[in-house]
Amino acid sequence: MIRAGIIGVTGYVGIEICRILHQHPQVKVTYVTTKTYVGDDIAAIYPHLQGIVFHKGAELNVDVIIQECDLIFISLPYGQAVKIVPLLLAAGKRVIDAGPDFRLKNPSDYVQWYKLESAPVELLNKAVYGLPEITNKDNIAKSNLIANPGCNSTAVLLATYPALKHKIIQPNECIFDVKVGLSGAGREPDTYKLYSEIAENIFAIQVAGLHRHTPEIEQELSLIAEEPILAQFSLHIVPITRGILVTACYKLKEPKSAHEIYTLYKRTYENEPFIRICRLGSSAKVKNVRGTNYCDISIHVDVRTQRLIVLSAIDNMIKGAAGQAVQNMNLMYQLPQTTGLDKFVAIYP
Amino acid sequence: MIRAGIIGVTGYVGIEICRILHQHPQVKVTYVTTKTYVGDDIAAIYPHLQGIVFHKGAELNVDVIIQECDLIFISLPYGQAVKIVPLLLAAGKRVIDAGPDFRLKNPSDYVQWYKLESAPVELLNKAVYGLPEITNKDNIAKSNLIANPGCNSTAVLLATYPALKHKIIQPNECIFDVKVGLSGAGREPDTYKLYSEIAENIFAIQVAGLHRHTPEIEQELSLIAEEPILAQFSLHIVPITRGILVTACYKLKEPKSAHEIYTLYKRTYENEPFIRICRLGSSAKVKNVRGTNYCDISIHVDVRTQRLIVLSAIDNMIKGAAGQAVQNMNLMYQLPQTTGLDKFVAIYP
Amino acid sequence: MIRAGIIGVTGYVGIEICRILHQHPQVKVTYVTTKTYVGDDIAAIYPHLQGIVFHKGAELNVDVIIQECDLIFISLPYGQAVKIVPLLLAAGKRVIDAGPDFRLKNPSDYVQWYKLESAPVELLNKAVYGLPEITNKDNIAKSNLIANPGCNSTAVLLATYPALKHKIIQPNECIFDVKVGLSGAGREPDTYKLYSEIAENIFAIQVAGLHRHTPEIEQELSLIAEEPILAQFSLHIVPITRGILVTACYKLKEPKSAHEIYTLYKRTYENEPFIRICRLGSSAKVKNVRGTNYCDISIHVDVRTQRLIVLSAIDNMIKGAAGQAVQNMNLMYQLPQTTGLDKFVAIYP
Amino acid sequence: MIRAGIIGVTGYVGIEICRILHQHPQVKVTYVTTKTYVGDDIAAIYPHLQGIVFHKGAELNVDVIIQECDLIFISLPYGQAVKIVPLLLAAGKRVIDAGPDFRLKNPSDYVQWYKLESAPVELLNKAVYGLPEITNKDNIAKSNLIANPGCNSTAVLLATYPALKHKIIQPNECIFDVKVGLSGAGREPDTYKLYSEIAENIFAIQVAGLHRHTPEIEQELSLIAEEPILAQFSLHIVPITRGILVTACYKLKEPKSAHEIYTLYKRTYENEPFIRICRLGSSAKVKNVRGTNYCDISIHVDVRTQRLIVLSAIDNMIKGAAGQAVQNMNLMYQLPQTTGLDKFVAIYP
Repeated sequence: MIRAGIIGVTGYVGIEICRILHQHPQVKVTYVTTKTYVGDDIAAIYPHLQGIVFHKGAELNVDVIIQECDLIFISLPYGQAVKIVPLLLAAGKRVIDAGPDFRLKNPSDYVQWYKLESAPVELLNKAVYGLPEITNKDNIAKSNLIANPGCNSTAVLLATYPALKHKIIQPNECIFDVKVGLSGAGREPDTYKLYSEIAENIFAIQVAGLHRHTPEIEQELSLIAEEPILAQFSLHIVPITRGILVTACYKLKEPKSAHEIYTLYKRTYENEPFIRICRLGSSAKVKNVRGTNYCDISIHVDVRTQRLIVLSAIDNMIKGAAGQAVQNMNLMYQLPQTTGLDKFVAIYP
Repeated sequence: MIRAGIIGVTGYVGIEICRILHQHPQVKVTYVTTKTYVGDDIAAIYPHLQGIVFHKGAELNVDVIIQECDLIFISLPYGQAVKIVPLLLAAGKRVIDAGPDFRLKNPSDYVQWYKLESAPVELLNKAVYGLPEITNKDNIAKSNLIANPGCNSTAVLLATYPALKHKIIQPNECIFDVKVGLSGAGREPDTYKLYSEIAENIFAIQVAGLHRHTPEIEQELSLIAEEPILAQFSLHIVPITRGILVTACYKLKEPKSAHEIYTLYKRTYENEPFIRICRLGSSAKVKNVRGTNYCDISIHVDVRTQRLIVLSAIDNMIKGAAGQAVQNMNLMYQLPQTTGLDKFVAIYP
Repeated sequence: MIRAGIIGVTGYVGIEICRILHQHPQVKVTYVTTKTYVGDDIAAIYPHLQGIVFHKGAELNVDVIIQECDLIFISLPYGQAVKIVPLLLAAGKRVIDAGPDFRLKNPSDYVQWYKLESAPVELLNKAVYGLPEITNKDNIAKSNLIANPGCNSTAVLLATYPALKHKIIQPNECIFDVKVGLSGAGREPDTYKLYSEIAENIFAIQVAGLHRHTPEIEQELSLIAEEPILAQFSLHIVPITRGILVTACYKLKEPKSAHEIYTLYKRTYENEPFIRICRLGSSAKVKNVRGTNYCDISIHVDVRTQRLIVLSAIDNMIKGAAGQAVQNMNLMYQLPQTTGLDKFVAIYP
Repeated sequence: MIRAGIIGVTGYVGIEICRILHQHPQVKVTYVTTKTYVGDDIAAIYPHLQGIVFHKGAELNVDVIIQECDLIFISLPYGQAVKIVPLLLAAGKRVIDAGPDFRLKNPSDYVQWYKLESAPVELLNKAVYGLPEITNKDNIAKSNLIANPGCNSTAVLLATYPALKHKIIQPNECIFDVKVGLSGAGREPDTYKLYSEIAENIFAIQVAGLHRHTPEIEQELSLIAEEPILAQFSLHIVPITRGILVTACYKLKEPKSAHEIYTLYKRTYENEPFIRICRLGSSAKVKNVRGTNYCDISIHVDVRTQRLIVLSAIDNMIKGAAGQAVQNMNLMYQLPQTTGLDKFVAIYP
């Protein structure tokens, strides 16, 4: 059994990791920490886990974590994981960081976008960006430090990977219109997240290259394309709790039919259990992946404009965060990718 | 393996039964029927099941069902199951009917509320009303015909059972204010169910003793109380997809503290894995049971008025329909009640 | 022109008062105060008012208010209005307080429910509880201090007034099941108000006689009934932004038909432009009154139990707060009740 | 007083026209027709209009319309207005058609997209596409037949007009990602519009150049640009009742700052009372225009990619349909554009 710890268990991502690990056959959660609810029953804070989770929230104590855990999931605001990770690695522990501290390979990118000192380069070099369908899986398996991708980045990259890798699209003409639900903004109370502000509303945030997932997306797209890429990424808040829908608009280099591209995507992802290519003519829908680790992808070609439209849908809390973290864990421990995740099927309606 | 058939698989309840059975370790779904989508892939109609369910919808053919299935789940509009069930029972099959055709023991009640001929009395006598936490479990185990309770009835009865059985409340002063989500109204398109009509709206339907779950509730309450009971049942449509919250208001016969009643409820349900009594001071919430077979119950006493308020929350599609049907199946086949249902934990938020 | 001030303009109720007054033909808003946004354009904080409202938020300065305003609307957290009102009244100003500081006539009730010192008795005696359809309108007209009713209280009292006044129901058997939207909880960010917590959820708060609107409701019901009344008031949060639906359950003293009671309600409210009695057989719906000062009321009788069910629906921000405040203002200044309010019709869907 | 008729009053657009006209100081609604509810009180079908609208729905009778009305609003499914309009025009009546039958100038476009015979060319030539902020207002004033623009087209064109007219963007690189609420799909019950299907869901429909508003948008963009334009238009259904948010992505011909473009938009629309340019740095939001005839527009420039992002928000039922129809009527009758529309301010939250 893997002895797992969760740092920051009472955030939305932390509690999802906790829920998923409790249903995982190879994991025992041994230690969970919280800043706000030290000493409280987790099930009192999150009563959906009554009868299922019996932990109390502990204060963060690195010594205890090192003693109790083999693997540590970190779900903290940016800038905090970087303080803890060196201690954990030094003690021989393995770490999956759900935050952004180790995602950007170029320290100056981190400084520019997060206005904080970056993690040291040697640590960044150790960290593997863990998007299992795209990243080399052996690298994940061998790593002790996984930078779990951002939720928007996950949906954008999975939509783009086959087309970009197979060079059928113009790399610098990628336009990503992203719609995300509120859980992605976390549980800290802010006015803009209130039900009264969000219901019957839609709006953009940090549009026109201002959102922090921009450099992460561009870094990974550039790696796939093997050339520097600037992407147009526009993020919108929509009144749903969970889910991301990406509408990606690409320019085809040469005319291709939807069916050809459908086949390309099918083939590219044929061994990936969490990618589902939708039937031609149908649209990916967030409700179909809600509560699951799936990414649904649909393919559309405008024959008049020779643009390719790809829609990708994920649950931002699962494939976009906690589920992907567990998928990475499975790879790190040579378990089937799907262990503990394959029972999650969307409920409909 | 139990070979199970589902008649009416493309309704919301039918597809939930299908999803749950596909995750059940002791069941193989062998035959599913549909009226509207004969020949279509189930996963094309319900793409959340792409990669999981590979059936095509068949036309209803009783002979084939009898050949292919041991147990048949029926999810049809009222008045239709009664035509099929005798054939299935005659062939030695077992049946769980998710509809109302076998719930009311008194044929004249059915005639009055459904304006149709009732099932024959001998069939009604064979049918067991299957609410496992209340019904004698041996009766369920021995029965070949289970009348699966209505969703509202389930939530109302589970809220009331301990207080009524232990005679701490006045039996004819039970007032049930019930709030239900839209999935309970099914998938047939009607104007009142449109998103535009429901969002930012709340209203009552068939209030003041006009709703068809009234006689079912009163029949079962009367059995528990061992005297005839009239109940006040008001149903409201609220803008959620899944979930029922019952606010039950009772008059205490003698003063009791919330803690005493909490203890009574805990004790009454102590062997029931799907009942969770909420911590005193907290309210049952539908989100905590969404996607699960749990019924969460919270206890509140107004010391000024000596009224007991009990809140119960269920997912109308699971504990109120498909999950309870599978729970009944487990009992019929001497499996643990929780088989195939215990992995369903609410996702939050 | 009435020169009006608004203290606390950047809360949800304050900004609604501001919006309504800007459309009122007899009012000029001369001064608006804010704690959080001093110096900011109101239209920058609330861009729905861009091009309509050109004020900046001022710091609260009683001297300036006295100089600039004839009438002051106060929308502050409880316990704060009481500090300002004596100064305003002493300067000959008229005040409408949207908060609870002057609603409870018995100082010990305020102390018990709000855990604060009450307003002085002489001030409480001056204050008129301003529910225009129930309160003597002359008293409102002559008063310099109006305690604007709570939103839940408004909907409960309007549902109950005709039946209680005409003594057709048992006064101590009133059960109010109230469903309210999130705007009623205000704009202060709290975790429980987040979109992610509320969407697809329903739950009760401060049930079983614990909610602060209880003493207010009981005070006013007792005045109507001319005897002391305890009421059962259960409040639920439902996922809508605006609106209250009250399901009131009463015991009839003697059998009455729905039509008789419908006629009684029609007659009682025949001169009240903001009360609409729904057609028999239909339910009051919050969407039909959204954005308006109407209260829709529907009448239902259960002939089996001889209980009367009355549903009332209001917009908590308008008839439950800002609209009613303006209606009170109209009465204070001998204007038609409907001035500045009659253009507000619900948009549907 | 203008005597107005509404053909198709019981659809969502028809009833909005009806509501708005009842609040218009220069209009008397004299005749309203319905297919489904002949003889019924409009206020019984739409109780939000109880006490406000007292019409009964009449069967469509052209002779009576001609006798009773000066101006006729038509809100019918496509292909039906074309049968009535010639009779009305021949009788000297003026017509505003809310449907698409007269929007496309090229008959073969209509045939291609609607699979029906087009209106005769002479009628198409008489019809003026009435988007008052873009169309020559004199042409509207002089016309007897207005083709009221589609809702998506309105939002797209208002976002694009200043940039395209002033030639600061590349005309064939316009990408419109449109999010629309459910009311735009009308009141006919279809499965995909059910609350249960839409809540917590987002998906695209008729993406990649398949949506019928595509030729309308391209026709009008081509007129503005004075060259043929193909546009990329992707439509998404989002879980709101009312509202459209367009995220338009353009390529700048030459570098420009957000402030320069903001100024250009401000200047272009300076005499247009229904266009509001949002403060730089903020996003247009559908909630701020809900229930109003406003179009809010925000300007964003990505300095890295030299793309211009423009967001536009409208209420699809008002500026996208009924409100714009009344705005056109005002112009036809030499009234101020804002007559009967300026009291509509969004309620917030």
